[in-house]
Amino acid sequence: MALSPLLQELINSLRCLPGVGYRSAQRMAFHLIERDRNGARTLAQALTVALDQVDYCTRCRNLTETPLCTYCTRPNRDESILCVVETPADLLAIEQTSAFKGRYFVLMGRLSPLDGLGPAELGIELLINLLNQDEIKEVVIATNATVEGEATAHYISQLVKTRSIKASRIAYGIPLGGELEFIDSTTLAQALTSRTEIM
Amino acid sequence: MALSPLLQELINSLRCLPGVGYRSAQRMAFHLIERDRNGARTLAQALTVALDQVDYCTRCRNLTETPLCTYCTRPNRDESILCVVETPADLLAIEQTSAFKGRYFVLMGRLSPLDGLGPAELGIELLINLLNQDEIKEVVIATNATVEGEATAHYISQLVKTRSIKASRIAYGIPLGGELEFIDSTTLAQALTSRTEIM
Repeated sequence: MALSPLLQELINSLRCLPGVGYRSAQRMAFHLIERDRNGARTLAQALTVALDQVDYCTRCRNLTETPLCTYCTRPNRDESILCVVETPADLLAIEQTSAFKGRYFVLMGRLSPLDGLGPAELGIELLINLLNQDEIKEVVIATNATVEGEATAHYISQLVKTRSIKASRIAYGIPLGGELEFIDSTTLAQALTSRTEIM
Repeated sequence: MALSPLLQELINSLRCLPGVGYRSAQRMAFHLIERDRNGARTLAQALTVALDQVDYCTRCRNLTETPLCTYCTRPNRDESILCVVETPADLLAIEQTSAFKGRYFVLMGRLSPLDGLGPAELGIELLINLLNQDEIKEVVIATNATVEGEATAHYISQLVKTRSIKASRIAYGIPLGGELEFIDSTTLAQALTSRTEIM
Protein backbone atom coordinates (compact mmCIF):
# COMPACT_ATOMS: atom_id res chain seq x y z
CA MET A 1 0.00 0.00 0.00
CA ALA A 2 1.27 3.41 -0.87
CA LEU A 3 -0.06 5.38 2.09
CA SER A 4 2.24 6.21 4.97
CA PRO A 5 2.00 3.39 7.58
CA LEU A 6 0.64 5.63 10.34
CA LEU A 7 -2.10 7.01 8.11
CA GLN A 8 -2.92 3.47 7.05
CA GLU A 9 -3.16 2.45 10.68
CA LEU A 10 -5.42 5.42 11.45
CA ILE A 11 -7.70 4.46 8.55
CA ASN A 12 -7.86 0.86 9.77
CA SER A 13 -8.70 1.93 13.31
CA LEU A 14 -11.43 4.30 12.13
CA ARG A 15 -13.15 1.28 10.59
CA CYS A 16 -14.10 0.09 14.08
CA LEU A 17 -16.77 2.83 13.99
CA PRO A 18 -20.20 1.47 13.05
CA GLY A 19 -21.20 2.16 9.45
CA VAL A 20 -17.74 3.31 8.40
CA GLY A 21 -16.20 1.46 5.44
CA TYR A 22 -12.77 1.88 3.91
CA ARG A 23 -13.65 4.93 1.79
CA SER A 24 -15.28 6.83 4.64
CA ALA A 25 -12.41 5.95 6.96
CA GLN A 26 -9.92 7.31 4.42
CA ARG A 27 -11.96 10.49 4.06
CA MET A 28 -12.14 10.88 7.85
CA ALA A 29 -8.41 10.31 8.30
CA PHE A 30 -7.47 12.88 5.66
CA HIS A 31 -9.98 15.34 7.08
CA LEU A 32 -8.65 14.97 10.63
CA ILE A 33 -4.97 15.22 9.69
CA GLU A 34 -5.32 17.94 7.04
CA ARG A 35 -8.05 20.12 8.40
CA ASP A 36 -9.01 19.41 11.98
CA ARG A 37 -6.04 18.46 14.11
CA ASN A 38 -7.58 20.14 17.16
CA GLY A 39 -10.77 18.15 16.70
CA ALA A 40 -8.75 14.97 16.31
CA ARG A 41 -6.76 15.66 19.46
CA THR A 42 -9.96 16.37 21.41
CA LEU A 43 -11.44 13.14 20.05
CA ALA A 44 -8.42 11.06 21.06
CA GLN A 45 -8.57 12.54 24.56
CA ALA A 46 -12.34 12.14 24.89
CA LEU A 47 -11.99 8.50 23.84
CA THR A 48 -9.21 7.79 26.31
CA VAL A 49 -10.96 9.52 29.22
CA ALA A 50 -14.31 7.87 28.44
CA LEU A 51 -12.68 4.44 28.18
CA ASP A 52 -10.94 4.92 31.49
CA GLN A 53 -13.86 6.30 33.43
CA VAL A 54 -17.20 5.32 31.88
CA ASP A 55 -18.55 2.11 33.30
CA TYR A 56 -21.88 0.56 34.24
CA CYS A 57 -24.16 2.17 36.83
CA THR A 58 -24.06 -0.17 39.83
CA ARG A 59 -27.84 -0.07 40.13
CA CYS A 60 -29.23 -0.05 36.59
CA ARG A 61 -26.26 -0.87 34.29
CA ASN A 62 -26.62 2.38 32.34
CA LEU A 63 -23.31 3.91 31.18
CA THR A 64 -21.92 6.47 33.61
CA GLU A 65 -18.67 7.68 35.12
CA THR A 66 -20.15 7.91 38.61
CA PRO A 67 -21.18 4.86 40.69
CA LEU A 68 -24.86 5.72 40.12
CA CYS A 69 -26.14 7.21 36.85
CA THR A 70 -28.16 10.43 36.58
CA TYR A 71 -31.47 8.53 36.36
CA CYS A 72 -30.78 6.54 39.51
CA THR A 73 -29.76 9.60 41.54
CA ARG A 74 -32.34 12.04 40.19
CA PRO A 75 -35.11 12.82 42.73
CA ASN A 76 -38.81 13.02 41.81
CA ARG A 77 -38.76 9.77 39.85
CA ASP A 78 -41.41 7.17 40.55
CA GLU A 79 -39.58 4.38 42.43
CA SER A 80 -42.46 1.95 42.05
CA ILE A 81 -42.17 1.50 38.27
CA LEU A 82 -39.13 0.11 36.47
CA CYS A 83 -38.56 0.14 32.71
CA VAL A 84 -36.28 -2.55 31.26
CA VAL A 85 -34.51 -1.57 28.01
CA GLU A 86 -31.84 -3.20 25.86
CA THR A 87 -29.41 -0.30 25.42
CA PRO A 88 -28.64 3.21 26.73
CA ALA A 89 -29.78 4.52 23.32
CA ASP A 90 -33.23 2.97 23.95
CA LEU A 91 -33.27 4.60 27.40
CA LEU A 92 -32.55 8.00 25.82
CA ALA A 93 -35.29 7.48 23.22
CA ILE A 94 -37.83 6.72 25.96
CA GLU A 95 -36.59 9.60 28.10
CA GLN A 96 -37.06 12.03 25.20
CA THR A 97 -40.77 11.22 25.06
CA SER A 98 -41.24 12.52 28.65
CA ALA A 99 -43.93 9.82 28.95
CA PHE A 100 -42.11 7.77 31.57
CA LYS A 101 -41.13 8.99 35.01
CA GLY A 102 -39.95 5.80 36.72
CA ARG A 103 -36.52 4.20 36.99
CA TYR A 104 -34.67 2.20 34.36
CA PHE A 105 -32.76 -1.04 34.04
CA VAL A 106 -30.43 -1.45 31.06
CA LEU A 107 -29.72 -5.01 29.89
CA MET A 108 -26.89 -3.99 27.54
CA GLY A 109 -28.11 -6.51 25.01
CA ARG A 110 -30.76 -9.21 24.65
CA LEU A 111 -30.82 -12.93 25.28
CA SER A 112 -28.95 -14.38 22.33
CA PRO A 113 -27.23 -17.68 23.14
CA LEU A 114 -25.58 -17.79 19.69
CA ASP A 115 -23.76 -14.53 20.48
CA GLY A 116 -22.88 -15.79 23.95
CA LEU A 117 -25.39 -13.48 25.64
CA GLY A 118 -27.13 -15.27 28.51
CA PRO A 119 -28.75 -14.04 31.75
CA ALA A 120 -25.32 -13.45 33.33
CA GLU A 121 -24.23 -11.06 30.52
CA LEU A 122 -27.48 -9.11 30.82
CA GLY A 123 -27.02 -8.53 34.56
CA ILE A 124 -30.18 -10.46 35.42
CA GLU A 125 -28.81 -11.09 38.93
CA LEU A 126 -28.67 -7.33 39.54
CA LEU A 127 -32.24 -7.04 38.22
CA ILE A 128 -33.39 -9.79 40.61
CA ASN A 129 -31.74 -7.93 43.51
CA LEU A 130 -33.64 -4.81 42.52
CA LEU A 131 -36.93 -6.70 42.32
CA ASN A 132 -36.31 -8.29 45.73
CA GLN A 133 -35.15 -5.18 47.55
CA ASP A 134 -36.93 -2.18 46.07
CA GLU A 135 -40.65 -1.55 46.32
CA ILE A 136 -41.34 -2.04 42.65
CA LYS A 137 -45.00 -2.44 41.69
CA GLU A 138 -44.68 -2.68 37.90
CA VAL A 139 -41.95 -3.61 35.42
CA VAL A 140 -42.42 -2.20 31.90
CA ILE A 141 -40.48 -4.35 29.47
CA ALA A 142 -39.36 -2.25 26.49
CA THR A 143 -37.07 -4.62 24.61
CA ASN A 144 -37.11 -4.47 20.81
CA ALA A 145 -39.79 -6.18 18.73
CA THR A 146 -37.35 -8.79 17.41
CA VAL A 147 -37.26 -12.54 18.07
CA GLU A 148 -34.51 -12.10 20.68
CA GLY A 149 -36.22 -9.05 22.16
CA GLU A 150 -39.46 -11.03 22.57
CA ALA A 151 -37.63 -13.97 24.15
CA THR A 152 -35.91 -11.60 26.56
CA ALA A 153 -39.24 -9.97 27.42
CA HIS A 154 -40.81 -13.36 28.09
CA TYR A 155 -37.89 -14.44 30.29
CA ILE A 156 -37.98 -11.24 32.34
CA SER A 157 -41.77 -11.28 32.67
CA GLN A 158 -41.52 -14.74 34.27
CA LEU A 159 -38.96 -13.45 36.80
CA VAL A 160 -41.18 -10.49 37.57
CA LYS A 161 -44.46 -12.36 37.90
CA THR A 162 -43.08 -15.03 40.28
CA ARG A 163 -42.42 -12.15 42.68
CA SER A 164 -46.06 -10.97 42.41
CA ILE A 165 -45.04 -7.82 40.61
CA LYS A 166 -47.00 -6.61 37.58
CA ALA A 167 -45.16 -7.10 34.27
CA SER A 168 -46.14 -5.09 31.20
CA ARG A 169 -44.89 -4.77 27.63
CA ILE A 170 -44.91 -1.57 25.56
CA ALA A 171 -47.48 -1.62 22.75
CA TYR A 172 -46.55 -2.67 19.22
CA GLY A 173 -48.72 -1.69 16.26
CA ILE A 174 -49.15 0.93 13.56
CA PRO A 175 -46.91 3.98 14.17
CA LEU A 176 -48.79 7.27 14.51
CA GLY A 177 -49.23 8.85 11.09
CA GLY A 178 -48.57 5.48 9.46
CA GLU A 179 -50.77 4.47 6.56
CA LEU A 180 -52.10 0.92 6.56
CA GLU A 181 -51.37 0.64 2.84
CA PHE A 182 -47.64 0.96 3.42
CA ILE A 183 -47.25 -0.92 6.72
CA ASP A 184 -45.51 -4.31 6.55
CA SER A 185 -47.90 -7.21 7.09
CA THR A 186 -46.22 -8.48 10.29
CA THR A 187 -46.83 -5.14 12.00
CA LEU A 188 -50.37 -5.00 10.67
CA ALA A 189 -51.05 -8.55 11.95
CA GLN A 190 -49.64 -7.53 15.34
CA ALA A 191 -51.87 -4.44 15.34
CA LEU A 192 -54.94 -6.59 14.64
CA THR A 193 -54.07 -9.13 17.32
CA SER A 194 -53.40 -6.41 19.91
CA ARG A 195 -56.59 -4.44 19.08
CA THR A 196 -58.11 -2.65 22.06
CA GLU A 197 -61.80 -2.21 22.75
CA ILE A 198 -63.28 1.22 22.12
CA MET A 199 -65.15 2.20 25.23
CA MET B 1 -28.75 16.84 29.09
CA ALA B 2 -29.24 13.49 30.73
CA LEU B 3 -26.19 11.65 29.39
CA SER B 4 -23.12 11.29 31.55
CA PRO B 5 -20.81 14.30 30.89
CA LEU B 6 -17.94 12.18 29.56
CA LEU B 7 -20.20 10.35 27.10
CA GLN B 8 -21.63 13.69 26.04
CA GLU B 9 -18.13 14.99 25.46
CA LEU B 10 -17.23 11.91 23.43
CA ILE B 11 -20.35 12.38 21.27
CA ASN B 12 -19.49 16.04 20.71
CA SER B 13 -15.92 15.20 19.72
CA LEU B 14 -17.05 12.49 17.30
CA ARG B 15 -18.96 15.17 15.42
CA CYS B 16 -15.67 16.57 14.13
CA LEU B 17 -15.66 13.61 11.73
CA PRO B 18 -16.93 14.56 8.28
CA GLY B 19 -20.51 13.45 7.57
CA VAL B 20 -21.22 12.55 11.19
CA GLY B 21 -24.23 14.27 12.77
CA TYR B 22 -25.51 14.03 16.34
CA ARG B 23 -27.37 10.75 15.88
CA SER B 24 -24.46 8.94 14.22
CA ALA B 25 -22.06 10.30 16.83
CA GLN B 26 -24.31 8.96 19.60
CA ARG B 27 -24.48 5.58 17.90
CA MET B 28 -20.70 5.52 17.49
CA ALA B 29 -20.07 6.49 21.11
CA PHE B 30 -22.40 3.79 22.47
CA HIS B 31 -20.91 1.23 20.10
CA LEU B 32 -17.34 2.05 21.14
CA ILE B 33 -18.02 2.07 24.87
CA GLU B 34 -20.43 -0.89 24.97
CA ARG B 35 -19.03 -3.21 22.34
CA ASP B 36 -15.60 -2.28 21.08
CA ARG B 37 -13.40 -0.86 23.81
CA ASN B 38 -10.31 -2.39 22.21
CA GLY B 39 -11.13 -0.78 18.89
CA ALA B 40 -11.71 2.54 20.65
CA ARG B 41 -8.39 2.33 22.47
CA THR B 42 -6.59 1.50 19.22
CA LEU B 43 -8.33 4.42 17.55
CA ALA B 44 -7.34 6.86 20.30
CA GLN B 45 -3.74 5.70 20.05
CA ALA B 46 -3.65 5.76 16.23
CA LEU B 47 -5.04 9.31 16.34
CA THR B 48 -2.48 10.50 18.87
CA VAL B 49 0.47 8.89 17.08
CA ALA B 50 -0.65 10.14 13.65
CA LEU B 51 -1.15 13.66 15.00
CA ASP B 52 2.29 13.65 16.55
CA GLN B 53 4.18 12.19 13.63
CA VAL B 54 2.34 12.70 10.35
CA ASP B 55 3.37 15.91 8.62
CA TYR B 56 3.93 17.24 5.10
CA CYS B 57 6.53 15.65 2.82
CA THR B 58 9.29 18.26 2.52
CA ARG B 59 9.37 17.85 -1.25
CA CYS B 60 5.77 17.37 -2.41
CA ARG B 61 3.57 18.23 0.63
CA ASN B 62 1.94 14.81 0.69
CA LEU B 63 1.13 13.48 4.20
CA THR B 64 3.88 11.30 5.63
CA GLU B 65 5.71 10.55 8.87
CA THR B 66 9.11 10.51 7.16
CA PRO B 67 10.81 13.63 5.75
CA LEU B 68 10.11 12.39 2.20
CA CYS B 69 6.94 10.48 1.27
CA THR B 70 6.87 7.09 -0.46
CA TYR B 71 6.27 8.65 -3.89
CA CYS B 72 9.24 10.98 -3.58
CA THR B 73 11.62 8.22 -2.46
CA ARG B 74 10.36 5.44 -4.72
CA PRO B 75 12.78 4.67 -7.56
CA ASN B 76 11.70 4.05 -11.17
CA ARG B 77 9.43 7.10 -11.25
CA ASP B 78 9.74 9.52 -14.15
CA GLU B 79 11.42 12.61 -12.68
CA SER B 80 10.63 14.73 -15.71
CA ILE B 81 6.87 14.83 -15.22
CA LEU B 82 5.10 16.32 -12.20
CA CYS B 83 1.40 15.99 -11.37
CA VAL B 84 -0.17 18.73 -9.23
CA VAL B 85 -3.20 17.63 -7.19
CA GLU B 86 -5.36 19.28 -4.54
CA THR B 87 -5.35 16.58 -1.85
CA PRO B 88 -3.67 13.29 -0.87
CA ALA B 89 -6.98 11.57 -1.68
CA ASP B 90 -6.72 12.86 -5.27
CA LEU B 91 -3.13 11.56 -5.40
CA LEU B 92 -4.32 8.12 -4.30
CA ALA B 93 -7.11 8.14 -6.90
CA ILE B 94 -4.60 8.92 -9.67
CA GLU B 95 -2.13 6.37 -8.34
CA GLN B 96 -4.79 3.67 -8.42
CA THR B 97 -5.22 4.11 -12.17
CA SER B 98 -1.56 3.10 -12.75
CA ALA B 99 -1.67 5.55 -15.68
CA PHE B 100 0.83 8.00 -14.21
CA LYS B 101 4.42 7.19 -13.35
CA GLY B 102 5.86 10.62 -12.57
CA ARG B 103 6.18 12.55 -9.31
CA TYR B 104 3.47 14.46 -7.46
CA PHE B 105 2.95 17.81 -5.80
CA VAL B 106 0.06 18.15 -3.32
CA LEU B 107 -1.40 21.64 -2.85
CA MET B 108 -3.47 20.66 0.22
CA GLY B 109 -6.31 22.82 -1.05
CA ARG B 110 -7.11 25.20 -3.88
CA LEU B 111 -6.83 28.97 -4.29
CA SER B 112 -9.79 30.30 -2.37
CA PRO B 113 -9.23 33.80 -0.99
CA LEU B 114 -12.55 33.76 0.86
CA ASP B 115 -11.37 30.75 2.89
CA GLY B 116 -7.98 32.39 3.45
CA LEU B 117 -6.22 30.03 1.03
CA GLY B 118 -3.65 31.92 -1.02
CA PRO B 119 -0.41 30.86 -2.76
CA ALA B 120 1.42 30.71 0.60
CA GLU B 121 -1.06 28.20 2.07
CA LEU B 122 -0.76 26.00 -1.02
CA GLY B 123 3.05 25.81 -0.76
CA ILE B 124 3.53 27.51 -4.12
CA GLU B 125 7.02 28.58 -3.03
CA LEU B 126 8.00 24.93 -2.63
CA LEU B 127 6.52 24.19 -6.06
CA ILE B 128 8.57 27.04 -7.59
CA ASN B 129 11.73 25.61 -5.99
CA LEU B 130 10.95 22.24 -7.55
CA LEU B 131 10.38 23.83 -10.97
CA ASN B 132 13.65 25.77 -10.71
CA GLN B 133 15.82 22.94 -9.41
CA ASP B 134 14.54 19.68 -10.84
CA GLU B 135 14.65 18.75 -14.48
CA ILE B 136 10.90 18.83 -14.98
CA LYS B 137 9.71 18.82 -18.59
CA GLU B 138 5.93 18.74 -18.04
CA VAL B 139 3.54 19.65 -15.26
CA VAL B 140 0.17 17.89 -15.37
CA ILE B 141 -2.36 19.97 -13.45
CA ALA B 142 -5.05 17.72 -11.98
CA THR B 143 -7.03 20.12 -9.78
CA ASN B 144 -10.78 19.60 -9.56
CA ALA B 145 -13.17 20.87 -12.22
CA THR B 146 -14.60 23.56 -9.95
CA VAL B 147 -14.30 27.34 -10.21
CA GLU B 148 -11.52 27.40 -7.61
CA GLY B 149 -9.84 24.36 -9.14
CA GLU B 150 -9.82 26.06 -12.56
CA ALA B 151 -8.44 29.29 -11.09
CA THR B 152 -5.71 27.30 -9.33
CA ALA B 153 -4.89 25.46 -12.56
CA HIS B 154 -4.66 28.75 -14.44
CA TYR B 155 -2.40 30.29 -11.79
CA ILE B 156 -0.04 27.30 -11.74
CA SER B 157 0.06 27.01 -15.53
CA GLN B 158 1.32 30.62 -15.67
CA LEU B 159 4.09 29.81 -13.18
CA VAL B 160 5.04 26.76 -15.20
CA LYS B 161 5.00 28.34 -18.62
CA THR B 162 7.15 31.33 -17.63
CA ARG B 163 9.86 28.75 -16.89
CA SER B 164 9.52 27.22 -20.39
CA ILE B 165 8.09 24.02 -18.99
CA LYS B 166 5.11 22.37 -20.65
CA ALA B 167 1.87 22.73 -18.64
CA SER B 168 -1.03 20.36 -19.26
CA ARG B 169 -4.47 19.82 -17.75
CA ILE B 170 -6.19 16.45 -17.38
CA ALA B 171 -9.15 16.03 -19.77
CA TYR B 172 -12.70 16.86 -18.71
CA GLY B 173 -15.65 15.43 -20.60
CA ILE B 174 -18.10 12.53 -20.69
CA PRO B 175 -17.09 9.75 -18.25
CA LEU B 176 -16.51 6.37 -19.88
CA GLY B 177 -19.78 4.45 -20.02
CA GLY B 178 -21.68 7.70 -19.51
CA GLU B 179 -24.77 8.24 -21.66
CA LEU B 180 -25.17 11.65 -23.26
CA GLU B 181 -28.87 11.64 -22.37
CA PHE B 182 -28.10 11.70 -18.64
CA ILE B 183 -24.99 13.88 -18.56
CA ASP B 184 -25.40 17.39 -17.14
CA SER B 185 -25.27 20.12 -19.76
CA THR B 186 -22.15 21.81 -18.36
CA THR B 187 -20.12 18.61 -18.80
CA LEU B 188 -21.61 18.06 -22.24
CA ALA B 189 -20.72 21.61 -23.27
CA GLN B 190 -17.19 21.05 -21.97
CA ALA B 191 -16.96 17.79 -23.93
CA LEU B 192 -18.03 19.61 -27.12
CA THR B 193 -15.57 22.44 -26.61
CA SER B 194 -12.70 20.06 -25.87
CA ARG B 195 -13.45 17.75 -28.82
CA THR B 196 -10.37 16.12 -30.35
CA GLU B 197 -9.80 15.47 -34.02
CA ILE B 198 -10.15 11.89 -35.23
CA MET B 199 -7.01 11.09 -37.15
